[in-house]
Amino acid sequence: MSRKLQPPSLLSLAIESGIRNISRIPDLSSLPDHVVFDLFQGTVREGKLNDKILKVFIATENKEVLTYIQRLGIKRVVLPVLPTRCSGKFDNSEGLLAGGFCNSCFAFGLVFTLCLDKMSDSAVPDNEVDVVIAVLGADISSFLEEWRAFFSRFHLIIVKDPDLKDDLKIPNGFDHVVYTKSDMDRVLGSNPTKIKFSGYLCRYFGYLMSRKRYIISIDDDCFPARDDKGLLVDAVAQHVTNLTTPATPFFFNTLYDPYREGADFVRGYPFSLRTGVECALSCGLWLNLADYDTPTQAVKPNLKNTRYVDAVMTVPLRTMMPMSGINVAFDRALLGPALFPGLQLAGEGKLRWETMEDIWCGMCAKVVCDHLGLGVKTGLPYVWRKGGGNDAIKSLKKDWEGVRLMEEVVPFFQSVRLSKSAVTSEDCVIEIAGIVKQQLGPSNPIFARAADALLEWVQLWRTAGSVSS
Amino acid sequence: MSRKLQPPSLLSLAIESGIRNISRIPDLSSLPDHVVFDLFQGTVREGKLNDKILKVFIATENKEVLTYIQRLGIKRVVLPVLPTRCSGKFDNSEGLLAGGFCNSCFAFGLVFTLCLDKMSDSAVPDNEVDVVIAVLGADISSFLEEWRAFFSRFHLIIVKDPDLKDDLKIPNGFDHVVYTKSDMDRVLGSNPTKIKFSGYLCRYFGYLMSRKRYIISIDDDCFPARDDKGLLVDAVAQHVTNLTTPATPFFFNTLYDPYREGADFVRGYPFSLRTGVECALSCGLWLNLADYDTPTQAVKPNLKNTRYVDAVMTVPLRTMMPMSGINVAFDRALLGPALFPGLQLAGEGKLRWETMEDIWCGMCAKVVCDHLGLGVKTGLPYVWRKGGGNDAIKSLKKDWEGVRLMEEVVPFFQSVRLSKSAVTSEDCVIEIAGIVKQQLGPSNPIFARAADALLEWVQLWRTAGSVSS
Repeated sequence: MSRKLQPPSLLSLAIESGIRNISRIPDLSSLPDHVVFDLFQGTVREGKLNDKILKVFIATENKEVLTYIQRLGIKRVVLPVLPTRCSGKFDNSEGLLAGGFCNSCFAFGLVFTLCLDKMSDSAVPDNEVDVVIAVLGADISSFLEEWRAFFSRFHLIIVKDPDLKDDLKIPNGFDHVVYTKSDMDRVLGSNPTKIKFSGYLCRYFGYLMSRKRYIISIDDDCFPARDDKGLLVDAVAQHVTNLTTPATPFFFNTLYDPYREGADFVRGYPFSLRTGVECALSCGLWLNLADYDTPTQAVKPNLKNTRYVDAVMTVPLRTMMPMSGINVAFDRALLGPALFPGLQLAGEGKLRWETMEDIWCGMCAKVVCDHLGLGVKTGLPYVWRKGGGNDAIKSLKKDWEGVRLMEEVVPFFQSVRLSKSAVTSEDCVIEIAGIVKQQLGPSNPIFARAADALLEWVQLWRTAGSVSS
Repeated sequence: MSRKLQPPSLLSLAIESGIRNISRIPDLSSLPDHVVFDLFQGTVREGKLNDKILKVFIATENKEVLTYIQRLGIKRVVLPVLPTRCSGKFDNSEGLLAGGFCNSCFAFGLVFTLCLDKMSDSAVPDNEVDVVIAVLGADISSFLEEWRAFFSRFHLIIVKDPDLKDDLKIPNGFDHVVYTKSDMDRVLGSNPTKIKFSGYLCRYFGYLMSRKRYIISIDDDCFPARDDKGLLVDAVAQHVTNLTTPATPFFFNTLYDPYREGADFVRGYPFSLRTGVECALSCGLWLNLADYDTPTQAVKPNLKNTRYVDAVMTVPLRTMMPMSGINVAFDRALLGPALFPGLQLAGEGKLRWETMEDIWCGMCAKVVCDHLGLGVKTGLPYVWRKGGGNDAIKSLKKDWEGVRLMEEVVPFFQSVRLSKSAVTSEDCVIEIAGIVKQQLGPSNPIFARAADALLEWVQLWRTAGSVSS
């Protein structure tokens, strides 16, 4: 027995769309009264009411709306929330913070409403995403076939390790561009350079060439993982969700990501902090081969990561974490040049074990995010990392230098503070380069070189915008 | 066809036990050479080698050991690790930190070895644990029956809500003591008091009466949860594991608890920070009925927590979190009086929604832990929270006051710093009481009252030690 479904009315579709985009509507006065009230009820129901939206509704002077507000006891309370001692500054250009806002410190007034503003339900158009793939072996057909369901909608930036001579084997059906050594030479020009794109570092060349807002970067030894229910994980979709829903760096939510379907903020979480901040960096994880260092790998050669932890969380303000470049995504518009190949070990190899560039870069990006009032998330999505067979003991000598450096690098990034005049990611990177040179440079020439590479990278980031891609 | 298993030899059992307890053995010189070498190999294999243990092995002058050390290239590197700007102080009485240590600041020298020291594999004797149960309804037989498998080994401290008149129904087979209003009156004496034990706050009376090192506290509306494989969760065992394995508050490990079986520290994690610190507080979570506030519960009455996140993590240094008293455990020896019923709302009710005492207490405990160099963990174990049917809208008015207060309380605890002279949990609480009175007191009498209650609690904590339990 078939059941006839009632098709939705045009009006109901329009209202649904209006609720979805309510935070972008500055004026509702031209709408009929009953539509305004329907919109308001829907906005409350969807948990999207915040101070800004409330003001727009109040401005309509719609009687039903005003009665409803009174009946629910919705009030505006403006209170100071965070200590004012911080020198940080928010980039509020996207209007993600709902309330009034003081530029020179973290203190801002926000609003308690009955509901939370879960803002980023807007889908990101496919053409705002670039998938960057760093390639060390010529045959990436099985890699791309396994990812086909998730990658084929997007533009792929495939970057060849400059030492890889063979032609790439790329299956049909992918919208892609391939960058090779000759592109790198062209962009870097003939001047001597501190920047290298060898091995997996070639992914950074892809970052430089991208013109999209969101960059998802997955290395060629990573394949789709299965979640705890056995389903293949769409890593691109999860990274985009991470980047387009707010992060909450100022207070820890014990039930993990409050913006996730079925989750929320736990009792005691200040309402003024629930709006969160924009998320600029999403660090994914790895099943099977975890990203351990060589000593750990040498001592525990059979240690595999088998535990799927179904969680995304914001890394709290001023907490440093070891970012891995294997499976990572960022908002290019917000963070841009803060993702760079800066630190190069003297005897650096091509294997992940033998580099520290992503760890360094992650801490640098975290400092930038903390300073600009942006968020960093970690957790989902997982990828399945194949590989192995590398000799950890042999790599130990190369990795050792990086392991040693961390003892200086971590406390440095934990304590570095940027000035108020640094208001963009580019400003921050330039400032960090100066502090690195001054504070770390004298102890090890590797740091002075990293500082130079940073400045060179910013310069390149500026000019690469005019280079044809 | 049955296969005969070879029984282990006494020697192999002795060596295994030696490896397990290697960090407690100060001298190996009396052992035969081949045993020392076996112990050393096992210690390396189990990832238990640290500087202290290495020294003990080197002191034996065992030739095979020395050759092995040389062959593996194990070196000692002493490096500064954390910025020296902190005023914090570690309680190093348990010798959890492996290296040399400067008392007046966080800077300490530690050691890079090939292996990590995962120290706390020692089982905790049952008689070092008290399970505290706050009881609001007289018939706790189904509660105890469901917990029987996990509770029956331990001593239970059952505390009756002082307003509960009926006799408790307690099934046979539990080693327990019941505390009631008359015990509270006896301990509080005839002086006027700011301390209340009504509703679920009665659990704090259990804390006061305990003489054990570890306190696990689970409220009477919580039942054993099932994990993602459908197995019942032993919440007591998980809390004990959380409290007896190190916490790592100084750097974020992206693969969650590095001390868990099958996990480790991710590449880039400084080796000097891998020894971690003692964990003093373990915050468990809830499936089914999550611990949301009344506004959230009113807006989303059907929102249940169904996601089992298989993770334990350390809450990073200087990050505040909303602790819930529903399912929590702590090390009484380390944290003692920092768990107290301090903040009382003017119109406070008995329901969790209507109180904020645990949120306040959790932030206070976190400040104490940060100051004393102790760790706080959150995540597993989950409990299954039954209940519901409460009218969130009705509770909204009572909860509202607490919600508003959080806007002041959170920034306060985020910014409060204690002096070097506070070296015990008790010192810290007294100091916090003074700062609360001074900084928060003028804005709201509720805070001045909380400060008084804190001081009274410390006094009670001192004297309760001599009260017969």
